[in-house]
Amino acid sequence: MDRRRFTRLFALTAGSTALPGFRFPTLHGSPAVDAARLAARMTRLAGFGANDAGGIDRVAFGDADLAARAWIRGLMDDAGLATHVDLAGNLVGRREGTDPTLPPLSLGSHVDSVPGGGNFDGQVGSMGALEVACALHDADHRTRHPLEFLIFCNEEGGKTGSRALAGEVDPSELELPTASGHTIGQGVARLGGDPARLAQARRPAGSLTAFLELHVEQGAILDADGIDIGVVEGIVGIERWNVTVEGMTNHAGTTPMDRRRDAMVAAARFVDVVHRSARSIAGRQVATVGRIEVEPGAPNVIPGRVTLSLEIRDLTMDGIHATYDTIWEQVPDLAEATGTTFTSERFYVSKAAPTHPVIRDVVERAARAAGLSTLRMPSGAGHDAQSMALLAPVGMIFVPSAKGISHAPDEFTEAEDVTRGTRLLLDTLLALDEGVGLG
Amino acid sequence: MDRRRFTRLFALTAGSTALPGFRFPTLHGSPAVDAARLAARMTRLAGFGANDAGGIDRVAFGDADLAARAWIRGLMDDAGLATHVDLAGNLVGRREGTDPTLPPLSLGSHVDSVPGGGNFDGQVGSMGALEVACALHDADHRTRHPLEFLIFCNEEGGKTGSRALAGEVDPSELELPTASGHTIGQGVARLGGDPARLAQARRPAGSLTAFLELHVEQGAILDADGIDIGVVEGIVGIERWNVTVEGMTNHAGTTPMDRRRDAMVAAARFVDVVHRSARSIAGRQVATVGRIEVEPGAPNVIPGRVTLSLEIRDLTMDGIHATYDTIWEQVPDLAEATGTTFTSERFYVSKAAPTHPVIRDVVERAARAAGLSTLRMPSGAGHDAQSMALLAPVGMIFVPSAKGISHAPDEFTEAEDVTRGTRLLLDTLLALDEGVGLG
Repeated sequence: MDRRRFTRLFALTAGSTALPGFRFPTLHGSPAVDAARLAARMTRLAGFGANDAGGIDRVAFGDADLAARAWIRGLMDDAGLATHVDLAGNLVGRREGTDPTLPPLSLGSHVDSVPGGGNFDGQVGSMGALEVACALHDADHRTRHPLEFLIFCNEEGGKTGSRALAGEVDPSELELPTASGHTIGQGVARLGGDPARLAQARRPAGSLTAFLELHVEQGAILDADGIDIGVVEGIVGIERWNVTVEGMTNHAGTTPMDRRRDAMVAAARFVDVVHRSARSIAGRQVATVGRIEVEPGAPNVIPGRVTLSLEIRDLTMDGIHATYDTIWEQVPDLAEATGTTFTSERFYVSKAAPTHPVIRDVVERAARAAGLSTLRMPSGAGHDAQSMALLAPVGMIFVPSAKGISHAPDEFTEAEDVTRGTRLLLDTLLALDEGVGLG
Repeated sequence: MDRRRFTRLFALTAGSTALPGFRFPTLHGSPAVDAARLAARMTRLAGFGANDAGGIDRVAFGDADLAARAWIRGLMDDAGLATHVDLAGNLVGRREGTDPTLPPLSLGSHVDSVPGGGNFDGQVGSMGALEVACALHDADHRTRHPLEFLIFCNEEGGKTGSRALAGEVDPSELELPTASGHTIGQGVARLGGDPARLAQARRPAGSLTAFLELHVEQGAILDADGIDIGVVEGIVGIERWNVTVEGMTNHAGTTPMDRRRDAMVAAARFVDVVHRSARSIAGRQVATVGRIEVEPGAPNVIPGRVTLSLEIRDLTMDGIHATYDTIWEQVPDLAEATGTTFTSERFYVSKAAPTHPVIRDVVERAARAAGLSTLRMPSGAGHDAQSMALLAPVGMIFVPSAKGISHAPDEFTEAEDVTRGTRLLLDTLLALDEGVGLG
């Protein structure tokens, strides 16, 4: 959509935010999300790095990224937060609690985008967290735990900020170029971090009580099914393999059908096995063949060799392996029937990051109390919460993405959904602060 | 195989040619194939354009092609044939018959090769026809029909010589470059033809009594099943289509299995349908998907678009269309199940060329009389006989290709099989000469 269309659409949905106020009854009194302020800030944020397509080019470390963060820091100051930029370039706003012995409750997201990105990915969670800070400030509500509001550094280009907090950034990454034209190391310095001391940005496990992230779904489930809130069960793990099918190259005219060892036919049946297996097993694993190459690749030659990619994602690595095993159990029959051989080599692993079960329950109960429909669901995409799960219990709240479109100017979430998610973020935070045990 | 291995192997199999002499009893007396002479000439021919891999680089119009043809012309002269090169560059050796009112019986093949070719494709039929001429000459056997022995021009690069006889060469083809470095027109002139008068090389339909070609199978059926002779039912027709499958590109992490419109899964099922359909229908049609391209083609993206090639070959064009229809009848269900759409566009047609049913019978009876096992089979590859079928009844005799290997240095046929095929070529020729009606 174009810029004007975004502004009009979002303003329209913001104008209709005549939601009944809701309270998570047993937990707190006065802090209240200001829907109009939140919508106005979402629109203002969309102006940093705005492009003609109605989206943003606000890549990490670029001028628009720096400008957006400076604007947010000012708003954090206004909300009474003590702000600083940590060694990894994360913008941190701290609000003290009543019990200084407690580790902080932390929340936030990112404001950097992919090139040609949209106005919601990362931004909903960032503005949502800021609004929570403002609501607490306005109500002068003091939590037991110290609170920490985070705008992470370079989420889209490798989750640099959140991974640095978990001690997961290899020093060699600092040399990598980014879409901003700066290396990651140069970029961290531009944001106010210190790449030379990046290792010291690490937070020890147990140093946070919990981390919460509000985010747009980036899938079409909530939107298609008309569900208000996704209670994220975790960020899925990912494994990828190269699968090679070897048959025998032969003349497509002189080789009868029953004497072929056609690697393409075998590969095709494998693709179907992958799809059917992922659908037939209980659970929400997904399995995809996204790339395929055929040799020699001529219309009149029976393919002798096919290589293809297999990707499986699931909430647990065990789930991934179970799906892989289910697929692979069917390969010997398939290979025998087609006179081919199959081999596979794993080339990528990203570990699953489950959210904390107690936080899931808290989110769900808070949503129910507010009259919101919920669905437990995995996050198929990566998030800062994935890194944060290495050092603290995490929770994630999804709001709907229109048609599931993401990383594109047409990315859209109604203002009403942004407000609902933000209220839920506040309620969840307060519930955790009131002392829900995270065991 | 290397050069020495070819010579040793072929000589070994030639040495073992202690075949019982056979005669097609009712038809003629004395002409007899000289197995040793034939084997020696096969070996000598393999020397023209020989490469280190044990095969040949004797592309049409190159020096080795010219040298081989000059050598053959000398042998034709020695066998009492009246030789000339026609306007299309075909080498023609004519032997008069007793009845000058009869149109000639014609036989032959080609001696040009693909780059890096083997020692049998075209060469068995050429040396076989020459041996037939020599056998008739040795026995002073006079046929009723005039006989015409043909070494065609540029079979591998587009069947220029045989297609010119059928009036099928478009003048624009003369400008096409060839592997020899010469254009086809230049090459025809190098062989002694006249490209400017190529149209006059055309023979009217009915100007030949019949055309016979002996050839190696270039498939593995005869070899694998231990059958001596393939009675060719025709050169198959070919049609090729580009098939496009449109689904929806989507995030492989955030799109559940049951909400995908995965063009790769749909294409995979189509490939399986193609294979199963071609196998399930009665007949010997073949259907092949040899090329596939996926967009966008990344492991973490559900493919939105797949294009693939579909090739179907059969002895009749009706057979091709019936197979296509059987495949396509299954597409709507497949498309609906996967949420995709299929379209196809035909981009290539080569017409089927059936052999004459009476000649098939004559070949079969002659083979039976000689104690040879036979199998009726299509030719999946193209041959000069395919062009000649446009102007005369044609017959083709296949001898086994070891492992079906063709267009490669490892192409191999035992000398015994070359001799058997040549004897059968002679017997078939004489049977046709004796007056088998071709209707």
